[in-house]
Amino acid sequence: MKILGIDPGLNTTGYGVLEIVQGQPRLVEAGIVRGKSRGSLVSRIQEIHDGVADVIEALRPDIMALEKLYSHYDRPTTAILMGHARGVICLAAAKAGIEVEDYAATQVKKTLTNNGRAPKWQMQLAIQRELNLATLPEPADVADALAIAFCHYCVSRREMLGA
Amino acid sequence: MKILGIDPGLNTTGYGVLEIVQGQPRLVEAGIVRGKSRGSLVSRIQEIHDGVADVIEALRPDIMALEKLYSHYDRPTTAILMGHARGVICLAAAKAGIEVEDYAATQVKKTLTNNGRAPKWQMQLAIQRELNLATLPEPADVADALAIAFCHYCVSRREMLGA
Repeated sequence: MKILGIDPGLNTTGYGVLEIVQGQPRLVEAGIVRGKSRGSLVSRIQEIHDGVADVIEALRPDIMALEKLYSHYDRPTTAILMGHARGVICLAAAKAGIEVEDYAATQVKKTLTNNGRAPKWQMQLAIQRELNLATLPEPADVADALAIAFCHYCVSRREMLGA
Repeated sequence: MKILGIDPGLNTTGYGVLEIVQGQPRLVEAGIVRGKSRGSLVSRIQEIHDGVADVIEALRPDIMALEKLYSHYDRPTTAILMGHARGVICLAAAKAGIEVEDYAATQVKKTLTNNGRAPKWQMQLAIQRELNLATLPEPADVADALAIAFCHYCVSRREMLGA
């Protein structure tokens, strides 16, 4: 069972793949898909789509875990732009026949730190601890992507244990 | 020169293709791409993407004209959802190598009716008149898509005439 976590962004989209081996999550690969910062919106979303599609093809995850529709943006324009990125990421999953599960940011933070408002550094530390990583996951987008994948692992395990 | 106008929506996406023949716009085809209303967001955006990609492949437009990033949504969630639809529509254009031009809704309305706040029926009447259509374009999403394509025609003509 491989879980692909995605932290969508127009400039930097973080991704992280966890494999569940004997009930324990293990890091397979994590990194970022970068939109060329000077490109037009259209070319940037194409880069995001193609980058995520490449990750899916290379790492063959069974499921994509994504941050839930956020209503925490102050400005409608930011929300629309993030929607563009999220739309093409979902499309990449759909084209590969992978289900998309989404989790609220607060749920992800709470699962890892017991604090729904945990700052980025606390999330990075928690992910490092949970996955036994030698170093802190950098940049924060990568830690966020891994955190979303980890949250899906925890929720699925709870469901399977009937807890 | 063929212009594809798109009026994006999660339930109904209107499209309309105009061909410019001897300096005059002529309706080639117009219609709607429908997302299954009961499908998940992911399956709906896939239907929108595939529907628009099919239209592009069948009608081979030279350019896509789209409503500009809207900041007129009251609720951030609506803006995000519309962003998903718009993102996959832009992706379909990018994959086909077609440029995307965007126009503010007020500019489209003003171009056709001289009134930046024209109601839907007024836009439908204006499009019927400009394109010499026997009947009113229905539903309104189709009229809106044709209006955006017509707006692009007017702007390009003005640019070419150096006016």
